[in-house]
Amino acid sequence: MMEIIVIGTGNLGFHLCKAIENQKVVKNSAFAKAKNNNVKNSLKLVGYYNNSARVMTDLKAPLLDSIHNLPQADLVIIATPDDDIAQVSAALKTRAIVAHTSGSVSIEAVAHHKNHGVFYIPQSFSKTREMDFSTLPICLEFNNVTAQKVLEDLGNTLSRKLTHLNSEQRGRLHIAAVYMNNFVNHCYTKADQILNDAQVDASLLYPLMNETLAKAQDLSPLQAQTGPARRNDEQTIARHLKSLKSNDRAMYEAITQSIKNTYGN
Amino acid sequence: MMEIIVIGTGNLGFHLCKAIENQKVVKNSAFAKAKNNNVKNSLKLVGYYNNSARVMTDLKAPLLDSIHNLPQADLVIIATPDDDIAQVSAALKTRAIVAHTSGSVSIEAVAHHKNHGVFYIPQSFSKTREMDFSTLPICLEFNNVTAQKVLEDLGNTLSRKLTHLNSEQRGRLHIAAVYMNNFVNHCYTKADQILNDAQVDASLLYPLMNETLAKAQDLSPLQAQTGPARRNDEQTIARHLKSLKSNDRAMYEAITQSIKNTYGN
Repeated sequence: MMEIIVIGTGNLGFHLCKAIENQKVVKNSAFAKAKNNNVKNSLKLVGYYNNSARVMTDLKAPLLDSIHNLPQADLVIIATPDDDIAQVSAALKTRAIVAHTSGSVSIEAVAHHKNHGVFYIPQSFSKTREMDFSTLPICLEFNNVTAQKVLEDLGNTLSRKLTHLNSEQRGRLHIAAVYMNNFVNHCYTKADQILNDAQVDASLLYPLMNETLAKAQDLSPLQAQTGPARRNDEQTIARHLKSLKSNDRAMYEAITQSIKNTYGN
Repeated sequence: MMEIIVIGTGNLGFHLCKAIENQKVVKNSAFAKAKNNNVKNSLKLVGYYNNSARVMTDLKAPLLDSIHNLPQADLVIIATPDDDIAQVSAALKTRAIVAHTSGSVSIEAVAHHKNHGVFYIPQSFSKTREMDFSTLPICLEFNNVTAQKVLEDLGNTLSRKLTHLNSEQRGRLHIAAVYMNNFVNHCYTKADQILNDAQVDASLLYPLMNETLAKAQDLSPLQAQTGPARRNDEQTIARHLKSLKSNDRAMYEAITQSIKNTYGN
């Protein structure tokens, strides 16, 4: 039985707690059985901490009242905002393995603990959306085999997609995720605004949105690129710029220029 | 029987020709039967024209040797590049209804013909990828009921998602499609390049890519936005900018600024 404490119950921490508890519930499923052949531990959420002292009714584990006085556990997962990780880590008096969950923070932030690591899931979590952990990539880093063993056991119990990344690679992955998620989503937002202003139903573009993604995964986005910037169609670009709101032009121009640079236009 | 000629066999023209011919082949399917109750015409591709005089082996219909001397038809669809539409339209000596397929060109480009219109499909076509027309939105514009009847019959035969947009709305939809397809795909490309440079498997981000799209359609992209720009995390933004290649910074900064503007940061 692996005993786990989660510090921070934002979107990721909350889903992580739920996944750890649900793993126990589903341990008679074929998937969990197969997993249990590979991992020695089943999982137990010993407790969680959030700084709003808010009891999570979805969880059976107790809310802990302080991070300075943690109960016994094998693993403490720090799922706080990036800027709080080093401070929380420094405050923890524990002999457990300590891991943080951030894409952009180095493993050094928890290096104060003898056995430490990183348990990073490159996904965007929301409390209102269910998440199937078994299909999620989990990127591990660790300072020794003790931390490796525990983090791999946890990772293999939750997911089929475990990988090892060092802090440098994880940082690059995190920047890539900003493009793939934050920037892509903002392009969706701009498209939505344009359609709303023109009183056109935004769902008209859902098939294009779906095909854009499918084609990028099927061909590669570099090959899949089309549009006025790709074919250097200055007339259309000028017409678009003219019809955009003035504070939308800088972003349109910058992406257009980057496409031109990419294809040597 | 509706007789159709398609001028231009690029990605869209090619798929349109195939969809028109396949409609005949699948007319015994439940879907086509249900459709045939709603529309009076089955479809026949009388011929197609491309300026490379290249015979399309996927098509049964003949390659036409000139646009100046078209055979009899009910509808001529101009699926050429945008800049060629007006010139091709002017060259056509036909009593058929003439429609173009462009998102960004006004209906005026074919107004020389007595009955005319627009048959616009906001989708990104590739010759190597199959396309299920039945799920695609088709946006119609027409100058009279004669053109309306024929374009609606064709649209209803191919798809379940017909809508009417005027030239102004279609132009806005086309700009939105640039964001939704061209710009999103370029963000995918940048993410891919960053991962390739760091020797990290790009498919690690596919679950995030899929969730980003699903969440935008489920919540709305405006609500789904996360990331350093959304939460005004200047430290992370500065670290990202520092680690980007110099000619990637302008685009990163412009999108970041646009996100800040959108959320009043």
